[in-house]
Amino acid sequence: MSQALFSSALLENAVHEFAKLPGIGRKTALRLVLHLLKKEKNEVESFGNSMIQLRRDIVYCTVCHNISDTAVCGICSNPSRDRRTICVVETVKDVMSIENTQQYRGLYHVLGGVISPMDGIGPADLEIESLVNRVNKDEVSEVILALSTTMEGDTTNFYIFRKLAANNVKITTIARGVSVGGELEYTDEVTLGRSILNRIEFTNSYK
Amino acid sequence: MSQALFSSALLENAVHEFAKLPGIGRKTALRLVLHLLKKEKNEVESFGNSMIQLRRDIVYCTVCHNISDTAVCGICSNPSRDRRTICVVETVKDVMSIENTQQYRGLYHVLGGVISPMDGIGPADLEIESLVNRVNKDEVSEVILALSTTMEGDTTNFYIFRKLAANNVKITTIARGVSVGGELEYTDEVTLGRSILNRIEFTNSYK
Repeated sequence: MSQALFSSALLENAVHEFAKLPGIGRKTALRLVLHLLKKEKNEVESFGNSMIQLRRDIVYCTVCHNISDTAVCGICSNPSRDRRTICVVETVKDVMSIENTQQYRGLYHVLGGVISPMDGIGPADLEIESLVNRVNKDEVSEVILALSTTMEGDTTNFYIFRKLAANNVKITTIARGVSVGGELEYTDEVTLGRSILNRIEFTNSYK
Repeated sequence: MSQALFSSALLENAVHEFAKLPGIGRKTALRLVLHLLKKEKNEVESFGNSMIQLRRDIVYCTVCHNISDTAVCGICSNPSRDRRTICVVETVKDVMSIENTQQYRGLYHVLGGVISPMDGIGPADLEIESLVNRVNKDEVSEVILALSTTMEGDTTNFYIFRKLAANNVKITTIARGVSVGGELEYTDEVTLGRSILNRIEFTNSYK
């Protein structure tokens, strides 16, 4: 869609801003903007201001670097969480994913990515130093590595493992295997192979 | 994704606002909001403000009811457009679609919808009166009806036709037929049937 054919510079500008978002092209942007135009003025204001306010006022937890409204996030300040376990993840989205499982009661540590020399991301660009400090300072008995199973993720796992080797802390990684309900036929060979190597004993209590 | 699991009320609010948009669920909303969070503060401000400003300052052309930055839109005020032809469309999006073809040099009239008793939309809710006034007042020789081929569109076409019957104005509708490059095999029967009924003479100048 040519830019010159828009009858309004304001419309053009709004569509242009929307189309910057990932996965939103100019056609979708136009549809969304025309939808907003039909809404009440205060609804559009609360939409626009919610983004501006979020970007302006958001803070990252000083302990785990998760997204937060306060200096220490709700998870780190929750007295009922297990403070002896730290789950290391790449992004705040990973924290949400694990929280959604409702299976984990420990704390988190958001690295902000993985070591990737190709992208110019070294250990100093990630929150690895603060993780080591947490483990040194607090009474941590287990660090769970939940990074992606890529070359970069494995490199980062190994880097963290080496950094924590001096500490008397148990280091684990999340289990990889055939997904619950997944069929063997459609599982990739690496995953299936690993699920056989890392097989676990079948007990009555296992679910 | 449960609402309670968000670690930030600001984030929750922004995701909630985004997820109100059509075709955007909570997962996509979260992805877009986290994308915005990574951007510079002024970029997010220009995003939010572009929507607020659009909604606050947009006006509709007093002549054709198209979206505009000024009281009379760029098309209506353009002296090189053919002022004797008015193309009647449902929405501002239709104006953009026709403008994109670069085949039409006349003016437009945006109805704002079609007559639909089921949705409680009668002729008084649409810009039909102002269309009749334009045809009465200005020197209009042709009105092109470009509404959708639904029951409601046909009703509206007929209503406008009756309203303009007293005027000495030519009333036409856009051609329906097999799309350019379309194959007969995959064209629906109604469209194919109509393209045979409304066949046109083959000439050298026809392209």
